Amino acid sequence: MNVIVDLCIIPMNGKTSLSPYIAACQRILTDAGLSIRLHAYGTNIEGEWDTVMAAIKACHNKVHAMGAPRISTTIKLGTRVDKPQTMDEKVQHVNAILDEETPV
Amino acid sequence: MNVIVDLCIIPMNGKTSLSPYIAACQRILTDAGLSIRLHAYGTNIEGEWDTVMAAIKACHNKVHAMGAPRISTTIKLGTRVDKPQTMDEKVQHVNAILDEETPV
Amino acid sequence: MNVIVDLCIIPMNGKTSLSPYIAACQRILTDAGLSIRLHAYGTNIEGEWDTVMAAIKACHNKVHAMGAPRISTTIKLGTRVDKPQTMDEKVQHVNAILDEETPV
Amino acid sequence: MNVIVDLCIIPMNGKTSLSPYIAACQRILTDAGLSIRLHAYGTNIEGEWDTVMAAIKACHNKVHAMGAPRISTTIKLGTRVDKPQTMDEKVQHVNAILDEETPV
Repeated sequence: MNVIVDLCIIPMNGKTSLSPYIAACQRILTDAGLSIRLHAYGTNIEGEWDTVMAAIKACHNKVHAMGAPRISTTIKLGTRVDKPQTMDEKVQHVNAILDEETPV
Repeated sequence: MNVIVDLCIIPMNGKTSLSPYIAACQRILTDAGLSIRLHAYGTNIEGEWDTVMAAIKACHNKVHAMGAPRISTTIKLGTRVDKPQTMDEKVQHVNAILDEETPV
Repeated sequence: MNVIVDLCIIPMNGKTSLSPYIAACQRILTDAGLSIRLHAYGTNIEGEWDTVMAAIKACHNKVHAMGAPRISTTIKLGTRVDKPQTMDEKVQHVNAILDEETPV
Repeated sequence: MNVIVDLCIIPMNGKTSLSPYIAACQRILTDAGLSIRLHAYGTNIEGEWDTVMAAIKACHNKVHAMGAPRISTTIKLGTRVDKPQTMDEKVQHVNAILDEETPV
């Protein structure tokens, strides 16, 4: 089962800067062979369910190992069985509608 | 690794009533031996990471099999390594603070 | 427009205990006249859109004033125009299905 | 109070294609003068709290008016009082860390 995920990991460790944790997770996701896109409030991920979930678990283990005693993560997770769909297609479909409307 | 999860599964199948899908998922989670609490916008789950994640995957498979071509799920997922914590303790800690404040 | 919300506020201030912040928010929500139900990963809220949103903003201001320099909040937010629905009805509909199935 | 938001609106109306709804919301957000970035599982938004929240309410009204009887939205919402921060800076901080690590 293929899945498109949006992952947002919040390490709770007393520092307001989260960038080092997020960078470490980006590396884990990429090393797992997953397609990812970082945005300003999380990371889009595309891949096979088990691969994605194993990588997210590895991220939690890594962030704890980096010193965060507590983590709160939010995951959005989309599956569909009617047709395959990629992350890029989702964005393109919306942009195509916006583009075809004639500006006044 | 123990995890406390909040799971909210949105089947997209053209029906506004989601109760039958949610009931089916409750059964899957319970049959997996997990502690769960249904609330008005999701279900709290407590258990071992892999058991919880396998049950959530089984829920997606079930909801698709029940006729929903597309699903969008939101998961919140908390882990901590400083001390064990249960769902009940999280609620009790907040209520204890509210209770000890003297009403005027 | 009536709304059913699930609110989860994560103060990022270097403490792993979040209970005092959450208790303060419970009080703000209750003082705003909203129906609320605390659970293990957030709070269900029912009320009029503007009242709910004003109360959530007041929670952010309060949590910052209590010392958290940074906050990351997750909100789920349901509206429907086909029929009115309460938080209690959402839970009851699921439980009714689970109850009517005959145990073997 | 400035806020960085991630908005994901799920119209529940029996169609699996959500692009027309999302395109309509993009237009509302842009017309409100907000900085936005569409990604594969939502839209990043940056702006003043009240302006952002009024635009999100206008999106709900629009999506209902377009025929969706029920909507379930997920919002992530970040505020900080220690220093100003833009969406672009959040992404740049992570990329800067990834770039400075020497590839083997």
